[in-house]
Amino acid sequence: MARRTDDVDELVETACGDGPGKPRAVARLISLVEDDSPALRDVARALVPRTTGAHVVGLTGSPGVGKSTSTSALVTALRAADHTVGVLAVDPTSPFSGGALLGDRVRMTEHATDPRVFIRSMASRGHLGGLSAAAPQALRVLDAAGCDVVLVETVGVGQSEVEIAGLADTTLVLLAPGMGDGIQAAKAGILEIGDLFVVNKADRDGAATTRREVRAMLSMTDRVDGAWKPPITLTVATTGQGVDEVVQHIEEHRAHLESSGQGERRRVARARREIEAIALGEVSRRFDHLSGDHRLDGLAADVVGGRQDPFSAADSLIAGL
Amino acid sequence: MARRTDDVDELVETACGDGPGKPRAVARLISLVEDDSPALRDVARALVPRTTGAHVVGLTGSPGVGKSTSTSALVTALRAADHTVGVLAVDPTSPFSGGALLGDRVRMTEHATDPRVFIRSMASRGHLGGLSAAAPQALRVLDAAGCDVVLVETVGVGQSEVEIAGLADTTLVLLAPGMGDGIQAAKAGILEIGDLFVVNKADRDGAATTRREVRAMLSMTDRVDGAWKPPITLTVATTGQGVDEVVQHIEEHRAHLESSGQGERRRVARARREIEAIALGEVSRRFDHLSGDHRLDGLAADVVGGRQDPFSAADSLIAGL
Repeated sequence: MARRTDDVDELVETACGDGPGKPRAVARLISLVEDDSPALRDVARALVPRTTGAHVVGLTGSPGVGKSTSTSALVTALRAADHTVGVLAVDPTSPFSGGALLGDRVRMTEHATDPRVFIRSMASRGHLGGLSAAAPQALRVLDAAGCDVVLVETVGVGQSEVEIAGLADTTLVLLAPGMGDGIQAAKAGILEIGDLFVVNKADRDGAATTRREVRAMLSMTDRVDGAWKPPITLTVATTGQGVDEVVQHIEEHRAHLESSGQGERRRVARARREIEAIALGEVSRRFDHLSGDHRLDGLAADVVGGRQDPFSAADSLIAGL
Repeated sequence: MARRTDDVDELVETACGDGPGKPRAVARLISLVEDDSPALRDVARALVPRTTGAHVVGLTGSPGVGKSTSTSALVTALRAADHTVGVLAVDPTSPFSGGALLGDRVRMTEHATDPRVFIRSMASRGHLGGLSAAAPQALRVLDAAGCDVVLVETVGVGQSEVEIAGLADTTLVLLAPGMGDGIQAAKAGILEIGDLFVVNKADRDGAATTRREVRAMLSMTDRVDGAWKPPITLTVATTGQGVDEVVQHIEEHRAHLESSGQGERRRVARARREIEAIALGEVSRRFDHLSGDHRLDGLAADVVGGRQDPFSAADSLIAGL
């Protein structure tokens, strides 16, 4: 036990320092928190006092809008503005894929040797609480390691797009011309949660139309933060066109969050969700232990046999905690 | 309170009877359990003694393999074999879509007037526990209403395919020729959980090849139920070709489950997951109440301020239950 804590302290020391082992230590810590390892608590305890409040930018958008390319272009622009940048690519729909399957999705070789860029793919592996349980731990590692901006790119569909907004300080919604993305966005509820909208592939026909459609839909939407008017930027991520403007909007939104008090509220709400997710995971583990002593099996047999309804069985389970 | 229970008892009476209000009462009960209404407990309590153990067949497969058409063809074949049939179409990826968006996906007008077919679309609406929390309640309604076979069709990708296997007695994996489905299946882990494999659109080129590929992959897979050798059937759902054979395999698998004891084990495991999901939902609700009295906010502010790590905050939360 003592040994393990020592190792964690040493890893955290290295990850937060500037020595040669830093990138490796950061990667190792993220693996630890991603695997839900027993060291998770020690890692969190050692990291919490070292975090400084990295600005988390969530990138979301349908497949084909150019998410990876945009992420890479944003890293370039953020580095040019002297930020230390973390990138987390999360695939919440693949409980079976480890990091390996995802590895090839993040093709950012140009940043691979930059000591102030940290890139990591992670799967949420069907964790209870999914993204909301594993990703905050990984964000904390990147924050403590000195990243002042972390881009979280979600590979996936549906619910993840809303989950990412729960994690992010700034939610950036990527669209592309002629993909019916406007309607998709309306369906998924991301109009309400997007802080910045980016129409990528703006060298194609229809970019201006897409911008106009999004603007019209935004004007009809009740937004979470009514005081912020989301800008809609046209970009060509492959050439970098418009990307500096996006970075500028990220800075403006960050300033708005701080001056309006929204930033603190979002951070507290995020911590609240994180605590809840951890607590539910812990309760679930305790249920599994109960299941080990056949209490849960007995309740389940009662439900199957029609002798008890599942709600009163659940009450017994909670009472046994 | 008494009033509400009376209403529920009356609804359940009508849904389980043979009177003219039956289809409406079944639909109303499913709406009640889907909406996580306060009457949920009363509904479950009234239904549990009336269930007889409907056989649940989960249908899963990538978009484009012909899931809705296959479901419809299976209903026809099951009705010809004198079964009373329930159909539940679940979309777990759309927390925002109500039943309305899904309604048009289940185009089974030919069964709409058959009094022994009950068709219902439901979204899992980001319920904690998703499918595993809401669907068992809906299955219970259909079971108590006299359906002896219920088809559960999942519209969606990834995790849902594995979740459906947790719900079903028989998991039917639909494939189509030339869609790279074999590899998809291997990735999603459904080779391990499929009890029946169906290559639909078998009038197209490549059906035999797909069957051969699946057979080869199955022979290399460690399966959950090693004693059952999953048949691979070729069908053309639009004409009904091969569908009777699928129904026959469903019956064979059902008989295997009962003779091997697997059936009872699966039902108990399913009830266990259901109880756990309900209990976790209840714990989550209690956390939300704690959040009402600002305890959780205080813990979250401590985490944001670096004064406490989220794991010890979660411990405090559980201690406060």
